[in-house]
Amino acid sequence: MAPSAQTLPTSVSDEKYANVKWEELGFGFYRTDNMYVAKCKHGESFQEGSIVPYANFQISPCSAVLNYGQGLYEGLKAYRTEEGRIMLFRPDQNALRLKSGAHRLCMPYPSVDQFVSAVKQVVLANKKWIPPPGRGTLYIRPILFGSGPILGSLPVPEYTFTVFACPVGRFHQDNAGLNLKIEDKFRRAFPSGTGGVKSITNYSPVWITLAEAKAQGFSDVLFLDAATGKNVEELFASNVFIVKGNVVSTPEISGTILPGVTRKSIIELTRDFGYKVEERVVPVEDLLDAEEVFCTGTAAIVTTIASVTFKETK
Amino acid sequence: MAPSAQTLPTSVSDEKYANVKWEELGFGFYRTDNMYVAKCKHGESFQEGSIVPYANFQISPCSAVLNYGQGLYEGLKAYRTEEGRIMLFRPDQNALRLKSGAHRLCMPYPSVDQFVSAVKQVVLANKKWIPPPGRGTLYIRPILFGSGPILGSLPVPEYTFTVFACPVGRFHQDNAGLNLKIEDKFRRAFPSGTGGVKSITNYSPVWITLAEAKAQGFSDVLFLDAATGKNVEELFASNVFIVKGNVVSTPEISGTILPGVTRKSIIELTRDFGYKVEERVVPVEDLLDAEEVFCTGTAAIVTTIASVTFKETK
Repeated sequence: MAPSAQTLPTSVSDEKYANVKWEELGFGFYRTDNMYVAKCKHGESFQEGSIVPYANFQISPCSAVLNYGQGLYEGLKAYRTEEGRIMLFRPDQNALRLKSGAHRLCMPYPSVDQFVSAVKQVVLANKKWIPPPGRGTLYIRPILFGSGPILGSLPVPEYTFTVFACPVGRFHQDNAGLNLKIEDKFRRAFPSGTGGVKSITNYSPVWITLAEAKAQGFSDVLFLDAATGKNVEELFASNVFIVKGNVVSTPEISGTILPGVTRKSIIELTRDFGYKVEERVVPVEDLLDAEEVFCTGTAAIVTTIASVTFKETK
Repeated sequence: MAPSAQTLPTSVSDEKYANVKWEELGFGFYRTDNMYVAKCKHGESFQEGSIVPYANFQISPCSAVLNYGQGLYEGLKAYRTEEGRIMLFRPDQNALRLKSGAHRLCMPYPSVDQFVSAVKQVVLANKKWIPPPGRGTLYIRPILFGSGPILGSLPVPEYTFTVFACPVGRFHQDNAGLNLKIEDKFRRAFPSGTGGVKSITNYSPVWITLAEAKAQGFSDVLFLDAATGKNVEELFASNVFIVKGNVVSTPEISGTILPGVTRKSIIELTRDFGYKVEERVVPVEDLLDAEEVFCTGTAAIVTTIASVTFKETK
């Protein structure tokens, strides 16, 4: 399990903390000191970038990302252990997912080594922003996007890969478990679309229903498949699992759900624990009939679902 | 027809041209002098912005548009007439479409008056970039996007509305008409998605198939509906019409195709010319059986389709 968790080199001397009220830390944007930036021209490959002070980008008003949504993001976390070590959780998996998304959106991409190196550099350059053990994590956000100007036709002349980081607390504030709404109208993804990669185009289109659900008191929404509207897919930004007896089931990777890094790890872990794990089509009925439901994600970690509401039924 | 086409005030004295080889003008990014920028905080409304020198934006690496794809664009054109007047084509229609998209993507939006005023200011501030009559047009690109930083949860703290412009020649270079490929795998939009608004999220996800089609020698792709894969929807960035006898048919507005401003005008015009116009479901068979096929768009204007290829059949 987690063969690629990595320990970063640290020195005790610079082990100081930023001036943060760690006990009040939520999950949101928090400006830190440094970020990583690499650029790449059309037809070339990404070369090593550099750590620069965190600042706004200069970006063309006619850039591919601003006009045509050409962008991907990743999310991973750095943890501080009780022993003072700094750990990353499987950063190579995020690198591979970014590569897959870059193919889908016609972009060049950093190599796995470059991606992991950039993440490590950003963590070390913002070390004082990593919360104390148990108080939170440093959330790391790599993004890859078309930064060059384009009007009408390909190619995009320039791409940017950047990594920044924010200290975060808990993503979900519901201590007793999440109250989920099964979304019966809006779909998140469709076959041949971008649901299987971490494209920026998957997110803002479903804010409208997430905002409505939150206004109604729900913690999150659970999307159904676009083709039939009968099977569960995933939450806004996490995968879903159901448990019945000795069987743990989760929607299979078929192009419309995100192949979560935490999802993959939980599948490996539950198998190690002796459960039978099924990656399959999961009808809504199976979820409503389950003994236990939970969701997994880098931001969400592993979170229990307390209730599920489908149409008028809770 | 075109009740809202507008003439802008001009003065003969500043009627100079920029140093452009107009006869070589294609359709692509071309840097001009000035752009319009207005910003708006969460919970507030857009106030009047200002004309500033064209330059790169300063944007947060953690902005909503870069990380979650929250953005819309519009496209319209300013024309120079033989009499030296400058004309806009129905800019209020673009303003209304932007408003509709802003609702869908949870953004505030400029009023119709502000939108039209901004477009006029950009045209006048870049007047020397409007090509001579018959040599091209000034393509105007309004964009609206979430510019403030957001990690995880709404709201987005800041939005930006900006308008810039580029002189353009023809969008399609195929003088004898377009050679279309009917796309049998990738879909552009799905019910409940963003296909009915000009969201940036509709475009880069289908570059992969547009690029393949162009490499195969086609001019553009024609997408089928995601629900059944049997009915035609639209091209990459234009609407489609078919003609048979006295009947002109075009896919109906049902949430998955863009309500084109040129489309709307052509419907009005063809009715004025005595054709029967049907906005309806258009099966692929009807298109293959048509006597004439054409596409409409601000960039594409009205362009004849010379051939259509579906699977192996041309």
